[in-house]
Amino acid sequence: MQADKMYMKKAVALAKKGRWHTYQNPLVGAVIVKNGQIIATGYHAKYGAWHAEKMALATCSHPEELKGSTLYVTLEPCAHYGKQPPCVQAVIDSGISRVVIGQVDPNPLVTGKGIQRLKDHHITVKVGVGQELVAALNPHYNYFYQHGLPYITLKQALSLDGKMTSYQGRRTQITGRAANQLVHAERQAYQAILVGSGTIIADNPQLLPKPQEDHVPIRIILDRRGRTLHFDQYHVFATTEPIWIFTKPELVHLPTPPHVKLIGLTEPTVKAVVAYLAQQKIQSVYVEGGATIHRAFLAAGSYQEIVTYLAPKILGTGLSAFAGKEAIDTTELQFDRIEKVGTDLKIVSKRRP
Amino acid sequence: MQADKMYMKKAVALAKKGRWHTYQNPLVGAVIVKNGQIIATGYHAKYGAWHAEKMALATCSHPEELKGSTLYVTLEPCAHYGKQPPCVQAVIDSGISRVVIGQVDPNPLVTGKGIQRLKDHHITVKVGVGQELVAALNPHYNYFYQHGLPYITLKQALSLDGKMTSYQGRRTQITGRAANQLVHAERQAYQAILVGSGTIIADNPQLLPKPQEDHVPIRIILDRRGRTLHFDQYHVFATTEPIWIFTKPELVHLPTPPHVKLIGLTEPTVKAVVAYLAQQKIQSVYVEGGATIHRAFLAAGSYQEIVTYLAPKILGTGLSAFAGKEAIDTTELQFDRIEKVGTDLKIVSKRRP
Repeated sequence: MQADKMYMKKAVALAKKGRWHTYQNPLVGAVIVKNGQIIATGYHAKYGAWHAEKMALATCSHPEELKGSTLYVTLEPCAHYGKQPPCVQAVIDSGISRVVIGQVDPNPLVTGKGIQRLKDHHITVKVGVGQELVAALNPHYNYFYQHGLPYITLKQALSLDGKMTSYQGRRTQITGRAANQLVHAERQAYQAILVGSGTIIADNPQLLPKPQEDHVPIRIILDRRGRTLHFDQYHVFATTEPIWIFTKPELVHLPTPPHVKLIGLTEPTVKAVVAYLAQQKIQSVYVEGGATIHRAFLAAGSYQEIVTYLAPKILGTGLSAFAGKEAIDTTELQFDRIEKVGTDLKIVSKRRP
Repeated sequence: MQADKMYMKKAVALAKKGRWHTYQNPLVGAVIVKNGQIIATGYHAKYGAWHAEKMALATCSHPEELKGSTLYVTLEPCAHYGKQPPCVQAVIDSGISRVVIGQVDPNPLVTGKGIQRLKDHHITVKVGVGQELVAALNPHYNYFYQHGLPYITLKQALSLDGKMTSYQGRRTQITGRAANQLVHAERQAYQAILVGSGTIIADNPQLLPKPQEDHVPIRIILDRRGRTLHFDQYHVFATTEPIWIFTKPELVHLPTPPHVKLIGLTEPTVKAVVAYLAQQKIQSVYVEGGATIHRAFLAAGSYQEIVTYLAPKILGTGLSAFAGKEAIDTTELQFDRIEKVGTDLKIVSKRRP
């Protein structure tokens, strides 16, 4: 039905208002319609705040009209007690008679249970309206609950001849201002930012998103040899947002500042790191390199997306992205989105599903 | 005047009909208008054929209406005897009273002379209408006559980690079918295709455009050491379209098949090659590599454009484009056009003017 799609689109637009603020929760939007009129809207505005359906119900100015109305919601309403009592109960209590859902919630605490409860109360339920739009709201959340693993993006900044830096171990500014700002903003969309120790030593970055919203991603350093454990030396330690350092087990008992956690790994593999992050419910990781780290994630098959910032310059020498001794041939990638960012290009490639 | 622009646009569209067929001549279109009606149109359809204005005049079905009409022509009408008697004379004779010109002809045989002749005959002349559209018709022709040098495009096919091949000296198919076909078609837009001897030996290409139109570009091989002078061994020699090989002077007296010309260079520099090509009136060169050749052109500053075909794969090892021992930093490039070609990207970057 055309009208269903239209209202779902509206709900998707509302959901986006929560962007950057919902942390581990998905973006969700809701619209309540009676006799072809929108009588209430809502969205999940912030981690810990009202769910979208709740907000729509609570802010409806004519609650008497809810009886017999239709709720459009981008994600299956929850049926469990989390930070909020379950939404399905509120929907049932309101007298809403039809619920149109964009996507089943992949979180096993919810999956299908919300829908079942609605049906048990003789509410008509329709699922899958505007599916693609809805799925695009929460790619990390969806992937995490579908696969039990974080969604991993490898980010690289390259010259037109594929170089990350002119000289190994020395910082080269490849991309321009606009691209650098976008990278900072993008960090906010992930729950963790990951680099190797070489990047800390060569570039000395802060690794913080900008602007900073409610929840700052956890900064992760893979540092087998403990080369970065000089907490007064590197910018990354200067702010008190949490940092996790994966290193060898012998080093985990070293004294650290309170915001720094050392995690010992006997086998320092990408798989082991990713498994740990999954266990900690980290839904998404933005891997910022360098070449050795990128290569290790690629070789392990632990990536869903590669974001390439391409600058219109030739360096002619220097360190290649993903550089290693052996050839890899990834035939699984495809270009997804390309946009101009200032003087540079942003090229998103994704693994074929 | 809005109408002038509109008719010039029409003339530009007509000019494009000659694409691939005019060889060293520019694309030109013409429209003749009387009392707000188009009474004739023309374009330069083929090297050696009618110029656009001549075609319009000759095919006008009501020649009596030409008196007092306006001619819109993308390029200044010629005033010299070339393959055809000069167009200005025909314009003057026709009784046309106003001529709107897109662009002054940069060819010194013509520049300003056509316009002067028209003015001498009391014809109103307006120059520069739709300038950008018109200039885009003949970028190679314009550049050649403005600078006395060929327009040089460096073409590379790269993986997402900037590699041209997995193993040096061995052919790796980086891009997909659609991109390969586009490269073949693109060759037809240039008057010469240039490669180094390493590309002949490693890839053994034919270097022909496809589809082949009236004038096949000259294939040029830079081969200081004469490594490719095995005329029965490489595909490039199998067809009889002309090939020029730049090599050391001692080798130029070797016997060659009739379509192969050996050119001796004491100083095997890019500047020397380009100067020779300019002297031979080669307006445009498509440089297809490899890395050493690309680097040499870049280092010499002998390029206007870099076309990068980018494939959505990571090789992880192999030969980098433009690879050399020292860093170059090109800050003069900017991205111009990006398009998806099959599964690959085509990225055009140009030097800042």
